[in-house]
Amino acid sequence: MLKRLLKKLEEYKMNEYDLVIRNGLCLINDKFIKANIGIEKGIIEYVGKENIKGETLIDASDKLVMPGLFNAHTHVAMCIFRGLAEDLPLQSWLKDKIWKIESKLKPRDVYYGALLGIVEMIKSGTTAFYDMYFHMDEVAKAVSESKIRAILSYGMADRWDESRAKTELKIGTEFLRKWNNRSNGKIKVIFGPHALYTCSLDFLRQVKTAAKKYNTLVHMHVSETKDEVNFVLEKYKKRPIQLLDDINFLDSNTILAHAVWITDDEIMLLKKREVSIVHNPVSNLKLTSGISEVYKMINIGINVCLGTDGGASNNSYNLFEEIKMTLLLQKYITCKADVLKAIDALKMATKNGYKAYKLKGGNIKKGFLADLILINKKSISLVPMYNPVYSIAYSGYCDVTHSIIGGELVMCNREILTVDEEKIISKAENIANDILNRLE
Amino acid sequence: MLKRLLKKLEEYKMNEYDLVIRNGLCLINDKFIKANIGIEKGIIEYVGKENIKGETLIDASDKLVMPGLFNAHTHVAMCIFRGLAEDLPLQSWLKDKIWKIESKLKPRDVYYGALLGIVEMIKSGTTAFYDMYFHMDEVAKAVSESKIRAILSYGMADRWDESRAKTELKIGTEFLRKWNNRSNGKIKVIFGPHALYTCSLDFLRQVKTAAKKYNTLVHMHVSETKDEVNFVLEKYKKRPIQLLDDINFLDSNTILAHAVWITDDEIMLLKKREVSIVHNPVSNLKLTSGISEVYKMINIGINVCLGTDGGASNNSYNLFEEIKMTLLLQKYITCKADVLKAIDALKMATKNGYKAYKLKGGNIKKGFLADLILINKKSISLVPMYNPVYSIAYSGYCDVTHSIIGGELVMCNREILTVDEEKIISKAENIANDILNRLE
Repeated sequence: MLKRLLKKLEEYKMNEYDLVIRNGLCLINDKFIKANIGIEKGIIEYVGKENIKGETLIDASDKLVMPGLFNAHTHVAMCIFRGLAEDLPLQSWLKDKIWKIESKLKPRDVYYGALLGIVEMIKSGTTAFYDMYFHMDEVAKAVSESKIRAILSYGMADRWDESRAKTELKIGTEFLRKWNNRSNGKIKVIFGPHALYTCSLDFLRQVKTAAKKYNTLVHMHVSETKDEVNFVLEKYKKRPIQLLDDINFLDSNTILAHAVWITDDEIMLLKKREVSIVHNPVSNLKLTSGISEVYKMINIGINVCLGTDGGASNNSYNLFEEIKMTLLLQKYITCKADVLKAIDALKMATKNGYKAYKLKGGNIKKGFLADLILINKKSISLVPMYNPVYSIAYSGYCDVTHSIIGGELVMCNREILTVDEEKIISKAENIANDILNRLE
Repeated sequence: MLKRLLKKLEEYKMNEYDLVIRNGLCLINDKFIKANIGIEKGIIEYVGKENIKGETLIDASDKLVMPGLFNAHTHVAMCIFRGLAEDLPLQSWLKDKIWKIESKLKPRDVYYGALLGIVEMIKSGTTAFYDMYFHMDEVAKAVSESKIRAILSYGMADRWDESRAKTELKIGTEFLRKWNNRSNGKIKVIFGPHALYTCSLDFLRQVKTAAKKYNTLVHMHVSETKDEVNFVLEKYKKRPIQLLDDINFLDSNTILAHAVWITDDEIMLLKKREVSIVHNPVSNLKLTSGISEVYKMINIGINVCLGTDGGASNNSYNLFEEIKMTLLLQKYITCKADVLKAIDALKMATKNGYKAYKLKGGNIKKGFLADLILINKKSISLVPMYNPVYSIAYSGYCDVTHSIIGGELVMCNREILTVDEEKIISKAENIANDILNRLE
């Protein structure tokens, strides 16, 4: 009798998780399957049919459950000035507007801009993002308060100035020392040299050495525009990817954003070096940069992720839009409706992001990070649902109801639980007025 | 004393409208301005600063108020099988899937498919649409019940068969006689011959004659794909627009959908004949048709509208997505970030649609149709709002809270008041299962 009771107690304890999501249609190994999920200490510890118990229970009978989206390239604080300068030729947009605004940006603007963008991301299903900007302490604070997961970099550029190179690397390194692994391990800091037209080769070598020393990754913009490639070709007589390889910059710890203007040879080199690529289709159209032929990269097994880029060149932080856009644009440039499958785009937006940044996430599987979202199956834009993969990939927008990040419930029934959305909106509106005054 | 009282009474009566929208930031003549709007018998009768009274009052202090969107080309009932066939090569998608599904479609499928698409349209800001399909009585019923505005056609194709030509024109004409001006004048019926690869020239001449007889318009697909143009070139030794002009098909009563593969000469001809064009950018990408150079048409003053096309080639019925897509794609194909202005795309999605279909709507102005939507200004994706035109045009999705169509409140705080959204979703789910069984 006592033995049986002890066994029962053991079973009871065994089944007690921090958080249980019940009866959801869950995206497991690329297919939607009915399952229960048990989460313990931020990690998925159980996936299956058993009637498991948890301290917190979420009924997902009317929901899809999938890994949260990973926005693998953005400048979240730029949210604060999205829509301020539109429909201008690229150079005047940058020089007369964006750089002018940025030169007058205050830490407080970056803090509230980051919070604003983070709330939009959470509400549209993003559970992790990569960010490169300045006043990064403010971004890190916003990340920490909102409890989203983030890979952060101070955006460094030496502009061929040795003393500047030193300062930049110092800021980047100090930021890493201060914030890496903070926020319950949700913040990772990596190095973010800006681009080949703002960083000298010598500086990039130093950054790579520092990244090795701190055992971390490097993220950089590359071949975003034709002008950028022409600049590199003229200056170095080599194409950007070859040039980076020649200075031993490329390996599996490198993530490159954009890669719009690259040749097939460069694609082969990226594959060989196991570099990850971040595709930002909306931003690339808006800035007239072009359309990256990511289907070629995916076909040979390069890890391609998705990003929204910054709010000034998008203007949304909604990764579902990028999923649909990726599928549409790859069909268009190849004239092949089946060039990419919907599930490929979903992977780009989830597991590929986690993989690029060396995190065990992006799948609903024992041992993986509990970064999950719930989507309302009865949302009008998803009905009827012949195959949830198609419904999600082609809706362009999903009614995300819950967000769980590292096992913590961050949004419940569309209400953000960690930060005050109304206050952030009101602060952002005040800052926007202030920015307008500064520009006068 | 009596005189003063009578004057007061007169004033009071003067100010009593069916519906009043107060304190909204209203899109009037391409700019957002604070105003009150008075609506009487389906028409905007007052726009201004006065404190007018109404039987029904809507407080729009936290809202943008703009003309409802006009989805100028769609097949709404196809909503019922969106997502059923995806990521297939175009020909096998059409022949093995879409045509097979359509051949087994029942009137009830079309009815609930139409209701489903209509609810999605209303919830995403559309107040009027053009539709071409079959079982059109069912679409008309759905329109009538939901109280949306619609221009409807039975989609006709003679396929070079004289007896079929007669039957098709008869069905189209009877549909017109039965439904034109019904639903409180919200339904208009026009003629919808399908395309140059499904209709003989003789049939098109007959349709044009009938349209003149009934004093109505004609809508047709044209130059959607390169294959279609090649077919016409081979068969008639002329390009499609020239061919249509030679049979006197083109005038200000003609609306052509797509026009992706057309030359500059054809564009000039369209302008000369005052034809309206419907641009469907998402569908054109999804079916690998191409990108129409609509900026050229707009530059010379052709009336270009926007459409979502059917749910099987999109899969959304959200016109805000098409607005953003139009802006992005025209920037991309021209490499000019300023080739179209945000306000141009908003006009395409509103007043240009009303103009094409000869309706006095698409502006907030005395004497115009009271087809209006309210948008939540505090929605996270629209904050901060430096210029509402930019915020709306580049968000890709708007939180539409209210829809007023012909003066009738059709959606209030996102609740559809005319039809039962939950029931429609549940019926659509059952029909989807049934369709799957039929295809086995």
